[in-house]
Amino acid sequence: MGSTSLSFASRNEHRAWLAANAALPEGFRVATTRVEFTPVEAPKPSAMTLSLIALDEPTDKFAAVFTKNAFPGAPVVVGRRRLAAETLGAVLVNTKVSNVCAPGGVEASERLCAETARLIGLPSGESVLPSSTGVIGWRLPVDAMAAALPRLAGGLSRGSALPLAEGIVTTDLYPKLRSAPACGGRVLGVAKGAGMIEPNLATMLVFILTDVAVPRALLRDLLPRAVNATFNRISIDSDTSTSDTVALLSSGKAPFSEGKNAGEFEAALRRVCGDLAEDVVRNGEGVRHVIRVSVTGATDDAAAVALGKAVVNAPLFKCAVAGNDANVGRLVQAIGKCAGAAGLDVSGLRASLGGVEIFADGEFRLDRAKEEALAAHLRGAELYASAPGADGVFRPPVDFPRHERRVEAEVSLGAGPGRAVVLGGDLTHEYVSENADSRS
Amino acid sequence: MGSTSLSFASRNEHRAWLAANAALPEGFRVATTRVEFTPVEAPKPSAMTLSLIALDEPTDKFAAVFTKNAFPGAPVVVGRRRLAAETLGAVLVNTKVSNVCAPGGVEASERLCAETARLIGLPSGESVLPSSTGVIGWRLPVDAMAAALPRLAGGLSRGSALPLAEGIVTTDLYPKLRSAPACGGRVLGVAKGAGMIEPNLATMLVFILTDVAVPRALLRDLLPRAVNATFNRISIDSDTSTSDTVALLSSGKAPFSEGKNAGEFEAALRRVCGDLAEDVVRNGEGVRHVIRVSVTGATDDAAAVALGKAVVNAPLFKCAVAGNDANVGRLVQAIGKCAGAAGLDVSGLRASLGGVEIFADGEFRLDRAKEEALAAHLRGAELYASAPGADGVFRPPVDFPRHERRVEAEVSLGAGPGRAVVLGGDLTHEYVSENADSRS
Repeated sequence: MGSTSLSFASRNEHRAWLAANAALPEGFRVATTRVEFTPVEAPKPSAMTLSLIALDEPTDKFAAVFTKNAFPGAPVVVGRRRLAAETLGAVLVNTKVSNVCAPGGVEASERLCAETARLIGLPSGESVLPSSTGVIGWRLPVDAMAAALPRLAGGLSRGSALPLAEGIVTTDLYPKLRSAPACGGRVLGVAKGAGMIEPNLATMLVFILTDVAVPRALLRDLLPRAVNATFNRISIDSDTSTSDTVALLSSGKAPFSEGKNAGEFEAALRRVCGDLAEDVVRNGEGVRHVIRVSVTGATDDAAAVALGKAVVNAPLFKCAVAGNDANVGRLVQAIGKCAGAAGLDVSGLRASLGGVEIFADGEFRLDRAKEEALAAHLRGAELYASAPGADGVFRPPVDFPRHERRVEAEVSLGAGPGRAVVLGGDLTHEYVSENADSRS
Repeated sequence: MGSTSLSFASRNEHRAWLAANAALPEGFRVATTRVEFTPVEAPKPSAMTLSLIALDEPTDKFAAVFTKNAFPGAPVVVGRRRLAAETLGAVLVNTKVSNVCAPGGVEASERLCAETARLIGLPSGESVLPSSTGVIGWRLPVDAMAAALPRLAGGLSRGSALPLAEGIVTTDLYPKLRSAPACGGRVLGVAKGAGMIEPNLATMLVFILTDVAVPRALLRDLLPRAVNATFNRISIDSDTSTSDTVALLSSGKAPFSEGKNAGEFEAALRRVCGDLAEDVVRNGEGVRHVIRVSVTGATDDAAAVALGKAVVNAPLFKCAVAGNDANVGRLVQAIGKCAGAAGLDVSGLRASLGGVEIFADGEFRLDRAKEEALAAHLRGAELYASAPGADGVFRPPVDFPRHERRVEAEVSLGAGPGRAVVLGGDLTHEYVSENADSRS
């Protein structure tokens, strides 16, 4: 996962790279617009971005996976119904209000889908997939959104997916867009998400567009597998969004032969998902260090994922990493917490951090020289130095990926063939600043 | 749990209350001393506090529960053996180094036990229970500790348990001591612990002393039940210490009749455990709001505990509370994350915060007036205002419990008879400051 990390010297360089890699696959158009409104639940005016993805012709080749949270948003409820639809012709996305368990939420989503369908010439709202992210509990400002739809539909254009990548983000530091060639066409993905991220079946909003004419049944086989190996193995804060959605649409413009091209397409899909997953972590809320835990020798892959997640979700280890403090005791504590609760055999644990062995044969392997090497590894993986603003608020000083380095933990158990790579981040003042009053 | 919260106007008032309630049960003496040392693993000198609890005569009436972390500390390994010992005559406690998976850790613990036994006239080290808290991975400075034991043993005195309560704390803001009368004698408990706290079978170090002559078998029945209903239902940061220990010792000085006194003793034990558990949360690392989640109508008590833990461990909800932001969407997200992963039925969810209904019949029940009432509830429960020092480090400005108020969440599921009360805290800059470089 994340084999092609990105690293840039400046925001401009990053944006230039994005623009150069943003070509929309054939058969798609996108548009975005801003909508101002005042929430029913809050006294202050607010604003959202509406984005639209439209296919030149409705397609039967689409797949989607959604959150496992027991309180899914209305767009997820509607989206699950759409999986049974014959064709899909558009995706309508809004930020700021996630439309989760809000009174009349499903009706609001359906009304916007129907209005969108009418404007772009689709037979009915059944051909539009709705998708929302933002505050949980607020109602969608349907009238303001409906009023903006004509200018949104009027702005649809081919060429670049970058406006879409920029339109769907919220607390993200930068847009996330990845692509790969495949079978004479392309696979392009955009992702939104920086917090409330521990996917339990897909996280955040991710839209993957391709012109390769992969049949519907195969898409629905390949997508969950790719998601499981990528988005389901990252965690920024262990919280699972009520809106998580990964949707994959094919315009069918590039011919596809299942016998000849399936492996190539799957590899491209996996690469785009893996790269986007790493992008999501690297610009996660308050993330100053990306932590990569490679687990081998677990009884099975599920146990390996659980152990990796336990490490990247352990608040004390995450804080230690934030402080460039190689408190590896907290790493082993996290493994032991998970193993103790799940009854896993960890008697053969060997662990290293940054290539330095820290634990073997039931004992720590530490000395002062190693401590210094470990601290240097952490300092080298820091994305930026932490400092509060004049108002006491901690904000990341960079809005592009400055380097591709990670805190590299290797955990081997010697108990079986199970393995997994899990990505997460540290726990920082920037995370607390971002989330202690994010609605105001 | 925590029916008798404490609230004081000043540090002096708090310390006076502690002193007035610290009378040692008959048959016990305590002492503490400071030990300076330089860890093998770190370049800087350090210091620990050694504490000793001694019984006038060895007792067969003792019980203990230990961490379920798969990498228990050496003192936990030794402590589990001690459960088989005929009698116990002393407990030796040190801070700063937890002696977890350190080379030669068990031998180090045993050597200190043997030395202690020799000094206070016990037959062997088998009669001494060792207990350590502190950095995971470092080795115990055995020689420096052994050299300090004579002055520790020489300082044993009756009267007050306050030196013990003060001796065992580390990042705790204040000592934690609770007591209750029982069966003509007393139950007194002291606790240490402020971080790495989500007990999975007891948390932190807790020593409970009583003079009531409850038989060994009954003590070993009552203690796990009390711990399960109290310490196992709190979480400061979801991390499970490798050293968690709750030990209960009776000097047997006050007569006990199982038929007549069992209920009274159990109630006193439960009260001391519940009060100490709330004390641990209220002075948890960085805790500015105590959060109390009362779950009813779950399929069983275990499901109720899991849901309550999911709420108090959800980083985004914890951050919102820290910012006095009544982002109840994050509360419902946490319930949905747990329910979705565990397959729990939450279709009948009703939830309130501070007595204000926020969710019923599958929908949020929010408006501006409620939002204001919710924010006022959060502000009222804040323990202190957050502000960084001149060096940018966030430190709690109080070292006593200033009030007893909590953020009160009520969650009812209508799915069965299961219920639980779970206590936790918010996620703050103070927590990050405390833990981003706690070893330096």
